[in-house]
Amino acid sequence: MLTIDHTRAGARLADEGRTACSGGGAAALHTDAATPDRILEAGYAFWRSKLLFSAVELDVFTLLAEAPLDLDTLAARAGIHRRGARDFFDALVALGFLRRDGAGRYGNQPDSNRYLDRDKPAYIGGLLLHLNARHYRNWGLLTQALRTGMPQSGALATGSYPALYADSATQELFLRGMSAGSLLAARALAAKFPWQRYRTVIDIGTAEGCVPVEIARMHPHLAGGGFDLPAVEPAFLAYVHDHGLSDRLRFYAGDFLRDPLPHADVLVMGRILHNWDLPTRKLLLGKAHQALSPAGALIVYDPLVDDGRMTAHGLLSSLNMLLETAGGSEYTANECRQWMEDAGFTEISVQPLGDMHSALIGIKPCE
Amino acid sequence: MLTIDHTRAGARLADEGRTACSGGGAAALHTDAATPDRILEAGYAFWRSKLLFSAVELDVFTLLAEAPLDLDTLAARAGIHRRGARDFFDALVALGFLRRDGAGRYGNQPDSNRYLDRDKPAYIGGLLLHLNARHYRNWGLLTQALRTGMPQSGALATGSYPALYADSATQELFLRGMSAGSLLAARALAAKFPWQRYRTVIDIGTAEGCVPVEIARMHPHLAGGGFDLPAVEPAFLAYVHDHGLSDRLRFYAGDFLRDPLPHADVLVMGRILHNWDLPTRKLLLGKAHQALSPAGALIVYDPLVDDGRMTAHGLLSSLNMLLETAGGSEYTANECRQWMEDAGFTEISVQPLGDMHSALIGIKPCE
Repeated sequence: MLTIDHTRAGARLADEGRTACSGGGAAALHTDAATPDRILEAGYAFWRSKLLFSAVELDVFTLLAEAPLDLDTLAARAGIHRRGARDFFDALVALGFLRRDGAGRYGNQPDSNRYLDRDKPAYIGGLLLHLNARHYRNWGLLTQALRTGMPQSGALATGSYPALYADSATQELFLRGMSAGSLLAARALAAKFPWQRYRTVIDIGTAEGCVPVEIARMHPHLAGGGFDLPAVEPAFLAYVHDHGLSDRLRFYAGDFLRDPLPHADVLVMGRILHNWDLPTRKLLLGKAHQALSPAGALIVYDPLVDDGRMTAHGLLSSLNMLLETAGGSEYTANECRQWMEDAGFTEISVQPLGDMHSALIGIKPCE
Repeated sequence: MLTIDHTRAGARLADEGRTACSGGGAAALHTDAATPDRILEAGYAFWRSKLLFSAVELDVFTLLAEAPLDLDTLAARAGIHRRGARDFFDALVALGFLRRDGAGRYGNQPDSNRYLDRDKPAYIGGLLLHLNARHYRNWGLLTQALRTGMPQSGALATGSYPALYADSATQELFLRGMSAGSLLAARALAAKFPWQRYRTVIDIGTAEGCVPVEIARMHPHLAGGGFDLPAVEPAFLAYVHDHGLSDRLRFYAGDFLRDPLPHADVLVMGRILHNWDLPTRKLLLGKAHQALSPAGALIVYDPLVDDGRMTAHGLLSSLNMLLETAGGSEYTANECRQWMEDAGFTEISVQPLGDMHSALIGIKPCE
């Protein structure tokens, strides 16, 4: 909890004050069965998000990846004015993102060192920058979205891809955010799925191609690529080239709302279905079934709502889709299982990806 | 944690798929010593704040104070479109602010029923609305504040009272936020301090007068009032009148930077010192010592930084003062104790107020 540990020193010393100079009885003692602690914790929670976003923006964790630094050196290198520097770094210590040694030097904790140092492969700072640049603003309009049922991301709603991709800077920020948001899920999929039994994989709605890149780099026998709108091709090719995978991963251009999907042993639809309404989800699942090899697998993943509708992150993610899309939402594994069965998939299983996403895997029967 | 409970059903069923239709080896298993859970939790924490702010804005807890309501009735009464309604209320259940019974009806939890029903005396929704209207925006500019050391609240910085009070709507929102933010601390003070041994109390920088009202209503023998800039007088008089205390509490007009403080047995400076730089703090403590009766008490409270600088809320509050003020910050009990001793106070004690504020109490010696 955020409340400070209680001592009764105040009451005790006030009593001593009375003995010294004045008269009066004992103070009433007031205790509440229902404290406001949980309300206050949630009310102030956005402070913690913004603290972390600023630390990532100012690249604090990259600066500390080599060795701990003292306050003045760290503040100077991060470009932080001395007025707020000590409180800022100490708050990062208090929240467990930094540690402070006996000499007052600041260093990374293991998780921030691994995930928030820009020079490490597991860097997920892009996700936090995306949350900061896009979602923090959109969530400012939650009440309006709840009242109207309409998205609040303006012309840049997810799904409004022509608008998103009309400006190259907007496109780049969006695509980078998508990659950062997919990275952990992509790595979990690369590690957990039995890729050895398949030869080709294509990621549907691939953006920069983060998912096929993570899978292909861990499984050299695989080939395939990513399917997306033609405007995305240069970003995809550059990303795949940067990862040295141009010989195995190619770009498949198309519009999944109008065109058939490309053929492969495994198709991945990550963070796609939640952007769309139910008829579109069913259309996409049908197209995937059509495009897969016999015995091929479809992997769908999103931040699912738990079947009991009791877990906050999936429900909050669903409200994020209210803010972001015209008809999207999160859904439960049971709902998706039914849609996949209706599309002809069998042996449907659920696989948590350990990063707030869960995958549903379905097999197209051999017949 | 926010991650969904893991099952290994996915891997198991994928293995069955292999037996049925294809060949290949076992999937590699990947486990991380350092998970990104804590990073993701903080990154998404602002979603929880905004969920609660919207629920308070839409007065969900007031609507449910009488009896539980089903989804459609609650959504209709709260003015929430059906698209997001179920996810919204279920997310409030998941975060513990609502409960959902077997019939699917939503009801308040004890803490939300007590603190977030507008018609209850302990209502603190005004604080959440203040955080939403003012702080959510200001914290969007944290990186800029860190880089420059300058406040980011524009012409409406705390301390810029002429600007804050120039527009009556701005003044009202600000003063209401101040009252809501002081309410819990005021009640704790009213309950915990030995008021029986004093006759008069004046609250310095009183705004609407929330603090003297809470103290006076619990202790009928006390008289006094609140000291603030002349522009605040109408709001103070209205608030005190609404609470039926006009016979015991009066308004003392003045500018504590230029004028002496009014005389009383007890002076309260709540959420005042943290707005100002150190010389101003010392000036104010000296004026308080001057104004108090012999054996009188000064009560100072703010969201203190803990002496070890290890607790997040005080440090984050200090960054909030960076955003809000030109020279303010939070401070530790040890620092304040020293300033109070320098000003002539003795028997200084610390009293946590149970709501993220802590008080320092000092006695003016009898001599």
